[in-house]
Amino acid sequence: MNPELLANPKAERIRRVAELANAKARRRTGHFLVEGPQSVREAVACCPDSVRDLYVQANDAADAGNGRTAGQDDSAHTAASVRSRIVETALEAGIYVHEAMPEVMSRISSNTQGIAAVVETERLLANGGSVSWPDGADDTRDAGDAGSTMIAAFWQVRDPGNAGTVIRSADAAGCAAVVFVDDCVDVFNPKVVRSTAGSLFHVPVLSMETEEFFAWMSGHGCPVIAADIYGTAENRPQSLPRLLRDGSLGIAAKAVLFGNEARGLPEEILAQAQRIVSIPIYGKAESLNLATSAAVMLFSMAMSSHIGTM
Amino acid sequence: MNPELLANPKAERIRRVAELANAKARRRTGHFLVEGPQSVREAVACCPDSVRDLYVQANDAADAGNGRTAGQDDSAHTAASVRSRIVETALEAGIYVHEAMPEVMSRISSNTQGIAAVVETERLLANGGSVSWPDGADDTRDAGDAGSTMIAAFWQVRDPGNAGTVIRSADAAGCAAVVFVDDCVDVFNPKVVRSTAGSLFHVPVLSMETEEFFAWMSGHGCPVIAADIYGTAENRPQSLPRLLRDGSLGIAAKAVLFGNEARGLPEEILAQAQRIVSIPIYGKAESLNLATSAAVMLFSMAMSSHIGTM
Repeated sequence: MNPELLANPKAERIRRVAELANAKARRRTGHFLVEGPQSVREAVACCPDSVRDLYVQANDAADAGNGRTAGQDDSAHTAASVRSRIVETALEAGIYVHEAMPEVMSRISSNTQGIAAVVETERLLANGGSVSWPDGADDTRDAGDAGSTMIAAFWQVRDPGNAGTVIRSADAAGCAAVVFVDDCVDVFNPKVVRSTAGSLFHVPVLSMETEEFFAWMSGHGCPVIAADIYGTAENRPQSLPRLLRDGSLGIAAKAVLFGNEARGLPEEILAQAQRIVSIPIYGKAESLNLATSAAVMLFSMAMSSHIGTM
Repeated sequence: MNPELLANPKAERIRRVAELANAKARRRTGHFLVEGPQSVREAVACCPDSVRDLYVQANDAADAGNGRTAGQDDSAHTAASVRSRIVETALEAGIYVHEAMPEVMSRISSNTQGIAAVVETERLLANGGSVSWPDGADDTRDAGDAGSTMIAAFWQVRDPGNAGTVIRSADAAGCAAVVFVDDCVDVFNPKVVRSTAGSLFHVPVLSMETEEFFAWMSGHGCPVIAADIYGTAENRPQSLPRLLRDGSLGIAAKAVLFGNEARGLPEEILAQAQRIVSIPIYGKAESLNLATSAAVMLFSMAMSSHIGTM
């Protein structure tokens, strides 16, 4: 714990932290900003070695275990005690914790809710090496095999909110990794980080060029299933519920690839996929948005492959 | 078609249209604003009798069928011809169309993309009477019966973006109606309308008090399935994939009820539900957000009940 209370919002250190809102500063420093109790808690719990500094609103740490301070209302008290618990975990993990005045926290960003962390991008990205592949990934297994590996891949996802939401859905569906393919939004953009609600620290998130992605998948004998409603002349989309029912998705490893919010997947990408799958529309809506498609597709497949193990 | 080109952004008529961004003005007039080509097109196509006035950026109508105007780029040309087609359909339906200068469109709202409509709330809400219930809704039917009626209900949904997104998902999943229960965001809030991407005009959206909702459902012999991860001491949640697999959701009518974004569903509401269902989390994410839960739950159930009919 830094014994010095940070009180000057104009301090050079604080300016540098606030600057992490910009991609340029993130690239130069190799750091990014994590805001709010949920995300900071998950960063501290799951990736403590990547967390360089933690900034917490002053007086919170002093409150820990001291019960209610007069004049604090319930929700302020709850928020303060949530932050205290995160600080305790961080100190145990040897993370450098700085107490700061509210105006300093506001200068860091308007989304800290009293707590923020500076995290190294490098080590987090290195997690990609830790994707666990099943042995003999090209073998067909029982649909009931929960040991199957699912990768969620997104080609040219551009909207930060979407990018964060799909990382969260992929995490919840038990995906082994998320891959951002080609020119996507920066995964360390603060809005992406916030929208993942901590999932950025649960599942490896990798960035790759298109060829690199397909080579990686084929190297692991992992078929790529493109989510697309049109398909190509040679490869028409198959309906998701039919595939779920006939058991042909019960394979040891699979990657599901989603397209750009506005343009979907272009022909040349679809041509490289082993299968094309579409979600049927039962009502009058024209289409589903990316976040909805990803949630439905990934969860349907996850529920289908876990059904035997519940 | 109004022969007069609307050129004055300060005109009283335009001020009144712009005012529909406020709930108070919507309540007083019984009108709401629909912005952008996708939503306006669906309003004109599906609910022409509810559309009072259509405002379109000037010169668009003159372009119809005249091919490219020199200096227009492709996307501007495409946008203009999309608007022209909507105007044609509107004129055929007898809707009053006003051409307006760009500054007038900007005064109406910053989200018109060159086209907006004023629509009556009353007639749209009256669509609720048109929900089609299966005969003998309390009979158990084959899971393959596509004639089953599914209602999507949301208790105290507060975020406009969420509210719109769930209406769109419910539409795509083929729900017969959407019900906003208790104190929800105003369904005619411009952000809700935009987020539905036209689905507001495809599926009846009703607002009800809690008791009214449960009485309506029980009057149609329609069980209420609450989506909740905790459940109550008497009624533990059942896992969604297990329910899908055992066929017990293959009933003629069902309503799925989702809770508030932050608080979920309170005990007293859960106690009134016939069943409680939860989506399993396979990864480390704590939970799913409302829009994701609704998409996964509604689509899983829809795919499961349509599987025999593809």
